[in-house]
Amino acid sequence: MLVVISGFSGAGKGTLMKRLMAEYGDHYALSVSATTRAPRPGETDGKDYFFVDKTRFQEMIDRDELLEYARYVDNYYGTPRSYVEEQMKNGRDVILEIEIQGAMRIKGQYPEAVLIFVTPPSAKELKRRLTDRGTESEEVIRKRMNRAADEAIGVEAYDYILINDSIERSTDLLHKAIQIQHMRVSQRLQFLYEINKELRTLE
Amino acid sequence: MLVVISGFSGAGKGTLMKRLMAEYGDHYALSVSATTRAPRPGETDGKDYFFVDKTRFQEMIDRDELLEYARYVDNYYGTPRSYVEEQMKNGRDVILEIEIQGAMRIKGQYPEAVLIFVTPPSAKELKRRLTDRGTESEEVIRKRMNRAADEAIGVEAYDYILINDSIERSTDLLHKAIQIQHMRVSQRLQFLYEINKELRTLE
Repeated sequence: MLVVISGFSGAGKGTLMKRLMAEYGDHYALSVSATTRAPRPGETDGKDYFFVDKTRFQEMIDRDELLEYARYVDNYYGTPRSYVEEQMKNGRDVILEIEIQGAMRIKGQYPEAVLIFVTPPSAKELKRRLTDRGTESEEVIRKRMNRAADEAIGVEAYDYILINDSIERSTDLLHKAIQIQHMRVSQRLQFLYEINKELRTLE
Repeated sequence: MLVVISGFSGAGKGTLMKRLMAEYGDHYALSVSATTRAPRPGETDGKDYFFVDKTRFQEMIDRDELLEYARYVDNYYGTPRSYVEEQMKNGRDVILEIEIQGAMRIKGQYPEAVLIFVTPPSAKELKRRLTDRGTESEEVIRKRMNRAADEAIGVEAYDYILINDSIERSTDLLHKAIQIQHMRVSQRLQFLYEINKELRTLE
């Protein structure tokens, strides 16, 4: 199954993902995005991102090697198809941490994908978190707040809203929400078909 | 929120409901159905069912006091509206244990209701459970198996299939599945509206 996680900048997605993988890592495969942006200090190629140049990125687009891609400011971000499909074949739930536009494209290709949007408990709390980082200017924070507001418009297309008020509780809820998807009727059609056939023929 | 639980006869629904209420009873209100059938030994009026005569049942239908009702063999079964609406106002999740036809009627009136279908892990296991009761004739068991097969046709309209292979695990999964519904975007629209407004206006 495909799981798409999006969320406001400052919602705590990154911490949530780390915690989910630390606690339930054997259930999940975390997709690694390709990007044309430069690595930040401490980022590792193939782990945080696949860092590629624009020529290679364009080639990936042309060869249909990306499930979705988007452009932010001057950089491209995309989800390599091969890794996702391989992990799904192995029966693992693949988690994509992507932006809202990419999420919509995934839903178009995989209607069974589950879309989860992470939000802080309030706009005030979001601003506090963005301010507490201490690394961003007032202007950048204002821009992010505005972008968050823009994003909230598309959130209705998601399946679940995860209000991240406590990292422990949120990790737990996220894991539960994903696990429960395996109970969806659409995931059980083969089982239903078989039990129905059995019921008709069992002596 | 409304939660509809249905399932094959012999799937272990009754035990599952008892266990759920014992472990998580403060989260849920279990709806009590009205029926025209006679009480069985040990059944209490107002707890297991509201036992009413056919005249009173017809009156409940005429006065729109039932959310749904259905007839089986010579008896009527229905869900009194007042109790359900009252408990929902109090913020509790109301559980209806009803048959598949009733479930469809509930979904028509409350599209947000979550429909869960309980099934044993296999048709063989279902037959074993029906046989182990020791109270039913071969013919009755055969009839139930056939009815189960008929029911399985409508199961695709449900949201979740709960394969009841272990009562502990199933109780846990059922509780989780219901709790996760509170994260659905449709349950969070007010929150989304408010955070969006806040993001636009926060200085």
